[in-house]
Amino acid sequence: MQTQNISSHFNSIPRWMRRYGNDCDVVISSRVRLARNFNQHQFPHVASSGELLEMRQNVFEMLLELSETSNLLENAGILPFEEFADWERQSLVERHLTSTDHIAQELGRAMVALPDSSLSLLINEEDHLRLQSLLPGLQLDAAFTLATKLDDLLEKLSEGDFAFDQKFGYLTACPTNAGTGLRASVMLHLPALELTERLAEAKQMATEQGFVLRGTFGEGTKPYGHLYQISNQITLGRDEDSILLDVGETVLHIIEMEREVRAALAGNKSKLAQDAVGRAYGTLSFARRINYREASNHLSFLRLGTHLNWIKGLSHQRFNELMVNIRPACLQVTKGQTLTSEERDETRATMLREALRKIRLDSLFTSETTSKYATRS
Amino acid sequence: MQTQNISSHFNSIPRWMRRYGNDCDVVISSRVRLARNFNQHQFPHVASSGELLEMRQNVFEMLLELSETSNLLENAGILPFEEFADWERQSLVERHLTSTDHIAQELGRAMVALPDSSLSLLINEEDHLRLQSLLPGLQLDAAFTLATKLDDLLEKLSEGDFAFDQKFGYLTACPTNAGTGLRASVMLHLPALELTERLAEAKQMATEQGFVLRGTFGEGTKPYGHLYQISNQITLGRDEDSILLDVGETVLHIIEMEREVRAALAGNKSKLAQDAVGRAYGTLSFARRINYREASNHLSFLRLGTHLNWIKGLSHQRFNELMVNIRPACLQVTKGQTLTSEERDETRATMLREALRKIRLDSLFTSETTSKYATRS
Repeated sequence: MQTQNISSHFNSIPRWMRRYGNDCDVVISSRVRLARNFNQHQFPHVASSGELLEMRQNVFEMLLELSETSNLLENAGILPFEEFADWERQSLVERHLTSTDHIAQELGRAMVALPDSSLSLLINEEDHLRLQSLLPGLQLDAAFTLATKLDDLLEKLSEGDFAFDQKFGYLTACPTNAGTGLRASVMLHLPALELTERLAEAKQMATEQGFVLRGTFGEGTKPYGHLYQISNQITLGRDEDSILLDVGETVLHIIEMEREVRAALAGNKSKLAQDAVGRAYGTLSFARRINYREASNHLSFLRLGTHLNWIKGLSHQRFNELMVNIRPACLQVTKGQTLTSEERDETRATMLREALRKIRLDSLFTSETTSKYATRS
Repeated sequence: MQTQNISSHFNSIPRWMRRYGNDCDVVISSRVRLARNFNQHQFPHVASSGELLEMRQNVFEMLLELSETSNLLENAGILPFEEFADWERQSLVERHLTSTDHIAQELGRAMVALPDSSLSLLINEEDHLRLQSLLPGLQLDAAFTLATKLDDLLEKLSEGDFAFDQKFGYLTACPTNAGTGLRASVMLHLPALELTERLAEAKQMATEQGFVLRGTFGEGTKPYGHLYQISNQITLGRDEDSILLDVGETVLHIIEMEREVRAALAGNKSKLAQDAVGRAYGTLSFARRINYREASNHLSFLRLGTHLNWIKGLSHQRFNELMVNIRPACLQVTKGQTLTSEERDETRATMLREALRKIRLDSLFTSETTSKYATRS
């Protein structure tokens, strides 16, 4: 385990993009985060710079010790935030690895992550440690098992120094995370609900179950490309299994809603959907400049076209990969340099035009044998 | 000359669309309107219904008399507004034949027009009569000559009853039209100035010359498809020739501005223009629903593409024809029935998709041999 460069450390196609998971027609990825803190240190938001650096050094040493007995973090890279430019740190948010708050400050902050992003450790985010597993499709249990493995090893190495209270469970910087310290999140792709303006129903259903349907990058963010996150709010007073079960069950409901609408759109060859898919294809095939918001929405509708059997050549993996690679910071990481907003829009358009060359539209779009519009003679 | 149906009377391709005129790369059409009123009647805005009807009947009788000695209005149709639905009257505005104010009230209002729209008569618009000639390209003199021919014939038939004052010239309902009663207008297509945000310069230049660059349908309207009207404001205290000369000269300046920008866009293969033309092509090729505003802007950029030699297959006439036929009321006239907003958007999209099949993009858009975007290995 050693310090790595953000641009070269990560596999260009992380595990959550690459491998098919359950229900991956709607579920992009599952994530479990466990919040842990050390008794001997102040929480990050009140700790001095010196203490943050000391805490981080302790963790690096624990991980070194861990690598002697376990290969769980083999090939993991250490990413101290001071060593990276803003846009490089921003790419970690765009890859769904950490939060905007975490990268906002550099000193004493860091990530440790496997190259395929399946397991990682956020150091001095809101809590001292957040142990995170990120896997493709709907597999919260597997993600929880993986994160727990790391938790067990670290807990042993910390020799009982994890802040834990008999009544409140794991103590956290923000009381809403106390108890299990478990945050289970699922990333959903809901283009059909969005297109038919039925997203409100899914949101309401989630709320009734005690969950919130959030934007693409979590709390307080907007959705891009019709990607939504759902996660538990309550971490206290319930055990891990019941949290994972509840999140999973709500996700299954939303999956059904999205699938039903998709089936209806395909069944009646919806003009609305044909318009969205056709425009997406036409625009991404010919645009020379495109911003992230517009590009992500078109890409999403192309993927919807795949589900409706109207589009060939856009695989699950390619969609996930493009959706991340067109993000502003990821574009710059790929290019290995900073780009102006205009350069990003051009690079993004070029990337998408190339991708579109491998995508074919169903004959529904290309052969119109009889015209609905009769010209006047 | 007899009463006609709006849907069947007009040639589907009016003269101003069909025939090439001078500078037709920028100038769509030239129009001259002469305002005339009768001494014996009140102006339309204060006349009673009975008086409006009587006035109209008098004009119809004059025209009948005229047809005995002149073939100027041979084949002209009489269109009394009471006989048409709202959307049929609206199509007259969309064909640039009259104003929204004229069609707003039916009783006693009418048009008389040649099937090719080159010469027409507005009855009980703001004035009792407006004699109008509409020709392709920049040819204000020819339009004036044609309108004047009709004016001379009618003046003779009216036996000196046209309201005329030795000091003020022709008297009109609104004093701003008194004097010559001449309004000379030119319709300009300015996509390059619009795209490069240099339209303000053209507007300022027009203003400095005493003219106003207005929207597609004249005073108080917005531009659609980057079509602008320019016309004289002052009708009093100047003779007809100097008005026509001044409008023409200002138009020539704007033509030069537009052409210069087009040449620059073509010369440096402007990414901005490629984006606009490419998106227009992609969207119109695949959209299933499109509103008039969006469609007109895309169509305009396709036409710009023709000027830049990036697009083949969209003739001057076809562009003019499509630009009018996609308008809401004209769509309904073509279909011969009322359509909901959604039906119009679908019919418009179908019409444009069909048109696009004959349009080809330059290899600039289709063959990208080397990629600007190098994927990370």
